[in-house]
Amino acid sequence: MVQCTALHLDLSFSALSDATRRGVLEQLSRADASITDLAEKFQMTLTGMKKHVHVLERAGLITTRKVGRVRKCALDQRALATEAEWIEARRKLFEARFAALDAVILEMQQEKNGGPAG
Amino acid sequence: MVQCTALHLDLSFSALSDATRRGVLEQLSRADASITDLAEKFQMTLTGMKKHVHVLERAGLITTRKVGRVRKCALDQRALATEAEWIEARRKLFEARFAALDAVILEMQQEKNGGPAG
Repeated sequence: MVQCTALHLDLSFSALSDATRRGVLEQLSRADASITDLAEKFQMTLTGMKKHVHVLERAGLITTRKVGRVRKCALDQRALATEAEWIEARRKLFEARFAALDAVILEMQQEKNGGPAG
Repeated sequence: MVQCTALHLDLSFSALSDATRRGVLEQLSRADASITDLAEKFQMTLTGMKKHVHVLERAGLITTRKVGRVRKCALDQRALATEAEWIEARRKLFEARFAALDAVILEMQQEKNGGPAG
């Protein structure tokens, strides 16, 4: 399970490390789009956009489905949930550490001033 | 400014796409550590760990400082803030879209049932 999450985070953070792919996710968070639409929007060849779409799909950030002759892309409903969770957990740890440091500094200041007031 | 954020996100998401580097950030969110400490903890050569530390520092996720003959690593205070912001903004857009879809479905159901109740 941990291994599985680690691989998922490897793939998704790697997918997010490209400005065009982040742009595609932004676009899909507003409306679904075909690969052709996306290629036009990002002034890119169809082959180039297909590669980006593949990376995003492999990372579980988007899903694609064939509608007639067109492949439609949509943001995966669970997209970015694990990533947001991971980042928030790290930030919370870090903030707790700073809060603990602040408490120590306050205590030291109070001792220097001759014990806590009140 | 937008360009600058894009480059920052390229570097930081790329830095986050490796399980060892995520482990180092987790470690540093609990306590500062020297490169030697980190190399031992992750059972890695000093040279290997130096490379990971360089990638994290370049991405603005950690800072390093020389204390005597030892290089100490610490999480950057602003670490993960831009990344969390980016992810949250995308998630909010996406959730708003689903809420709007839900509203349309509800309206259609009410019309089918002969107009809203009350």
